[in-house]
Amino acid sequence: MITARAHTNIALLKYWGKKDENLILPFNDSISLTLDRFYTDTSVEFDANLVEDTITVDHQPLIGPGLKRVTRVLDLIRAKSGHNLPAKVFSSNHVPMAAGLASSSSAFAALAAAAAKASGLILSNRELSILARHGSGSASRSIFGGFVQWHAGFDNQSSYAESIQCPVDWDVNLITVLIDTKQKKVSSTIGMQSVAKTSPFFPAWVKSAQADVKPIKNAILNKNLASLGELAEQNAMRMHATTFGAIPSFTYFQPETLAILNTVRNLRKQGVECYSTVDAGPNVKIICASTDNEKVITRLAAIVGQDRLVVCKPGPGVTYL
Amino acid sequence: MITARAHTNIALLKYWGKKDENLILPFNDSISLTLDRFYTDTSVEFDANLVEDTITVDHQPLIGPGLKRVTRVLDLIRAKSGHNLPAKVFSSNHVPMAAGLASSSSAFAALAAAAAKASGLILSNRELSILARHGSGSASRSIFGGFVQWHAGFDNQSSYAESIQCPVDWDVNLITVLIDTKQKKVSSTIGMQSVAKTSPFFPAWVKSAQADVKPIKNAILNKNLASLGELAEQNAMRMHATTFGAIPSFTYFQPETLAILNTVRNLRKQGVECYSTVDAGPNVKIICASTDNEKVITRLAAIVGQDRLVVCKPGPGVTYL
Repeated sequence: MITARAHTNIALLKYWGKKDENLILPFNDSISLTLDRFYTDTSVEFDANLVEDTITVDHQPLIGPGLKRVTRVLDLIRAKSGHNLPAKVFSSNHVPMAAGLASSSSAFAALAAAAAKASGLILSNRELSILARHGSGSASRSIFGGFVQWHAGFDNQSSYAESIQCPVDWDVNLITVLIDTKQKKVSSTIGMQSVAKTSPFFPAWVKSAQADVKPIKNAILNKNLASLGELAEQNAMRMHATTFGAIPSFTYFQPETLAILNTVRNLRKQGVECYSTVDAGPNVKIICASTDNEKVITRLAAIVGQDRLVVCKPGPGVTYL
Repeated sequence: MITARAHTNIALLKYWGKKDENLILPFNDSISLTLDRFYTDTSVEFDANLVEDTITVDHQPLIGPGLKRVTRVLDLIRAKSGHNLPAKVFSSNHVPMAAGLASSSSAFAALAAAAAKASGLILSNRELSILARHGSGSASRSIFGGFVQWHAGFDNQSSYAESIQCPVDWDVNLITVLIDTKQKKVSSTIGMQSVAKTSPFFPAWVKSAQADVKPIKNAILNKNLASLGELAEQNAMRMHATTFGAIPSFTYFQPETLAILNTVRNLRKQGVECYSTVDAGPNVKIICASTDNEKVITRLAAIVGQDRLVVCKPGPGVTYL
């Protein structure tokens, strides 16, 4: 039995829309930061004595669409390693699930890593990234630590993530504001499908996101927090703009989301370098230097309470326990 | 002294962006409903004994950018009538000002009508609409009652409003939800300029809005509330999507705006035919049949309080008092 740990990542340049639903190829490159605080531990063993795959997530048997995605990754690994053994998978998430905190990113990265090793495969991180992508697009990035770029690519082999910067040797961290940890009403998969099909803003989104790749990468390499934050906030707001344009119109924002976004803008006017990003859920993540955490936290705690704020630092890539 | 009364109108297909800033020519046609509840009374006299134009709005001397716009309309009327007399203007708004309730639409429609008549001009409603447009684009529509279309046009003479349906002989009304009646942080003029210049979504907005003209007009002519409401809500959400995409990103939505939008969507799921629209401000206006007012009001009063809900019926065009 092999156990792998992968950490969640938060995209600063968003993945939002698949140009190939089967291969999970995105329309544009994305760039993320892997976090130290939220992770998934997944143990896998292949065993001829099993009748079928047995998948346990957080002590519950996995059912529904998640099961199909796990089977898909396992099947790819079985095909690659030339065996056809059923797997026993045991996975624990240390992430508030499905609330835009990207639990699927850590889950499928840990699964790909553990299952590949349990099959006796010796794979590069790039190969693991490609495998993880088949479970969840964002999982391709969680194979790596620190700042990561997922190249959109044009086929299975060209769509993979790689490290931009790891370890992250400058002062940047991310404060997650948990507004709602319940299951999302519109999953990111369904949301991006609807937007890509019905929002008149989708083509401009893709163009704008792809144009952000170089500037955001440069901001990271130059350790320029203001530039990184501004670009990330702008990119996130544009992603959410596309949902308002869909048929039917929808939004991941909740009233408190807007209140937090507004507070962050006001803090900035007062000279605190902090920036927001929001994924396919109501929670806001705030990018700032740790030296500004206290100022940011004091202000946000007045809105949501201190217990809903979690400070995350850059985290590592996938490891084996 | 001539006194004219004009009522505010709320666009169901939004005016959002000028293709000519001087002539105030919009990028796309817009369609509105003139309301019975909010209006402006404006009295004008031209008097050789005055030293200069004297403009009083709500018992205060008018200053700032509003004054320039009034002078502009007065100058056009003086040029048209061939005199150069200073004007005394006295205007009272029966509208919560500058909170997305379109006080400028009624104000400049009443001004154009009163000033033209005070100059001895006998103008058609189309000519008044063109004059009012120079004060505020949306004022071109408030010359008319009921449902109105503003043709974008391509020059001064081709950009005017005209009646689609007046009187409105079917059951449609509009409930305004006053979330914030303070001055807006970003005026609609500044907002639309920023969006047209910096939002990558602006071209798609214009295309989408122009494509909505015929369907919305048909829905009005067919007295089809569901179709009118769906199209209006979609159009409004798309307008607001453009602001999230601007540099810097901004929004007119406040937390309560999102709460109301969500409540309206939920009411609809429960079978109540009600639809939202939002202008360049935080207030929501809900389109429904008066037979559903009670259901809608009961639900909304729980969020904002009964005193912030105003039921408006279709109102008349400009009249002289």
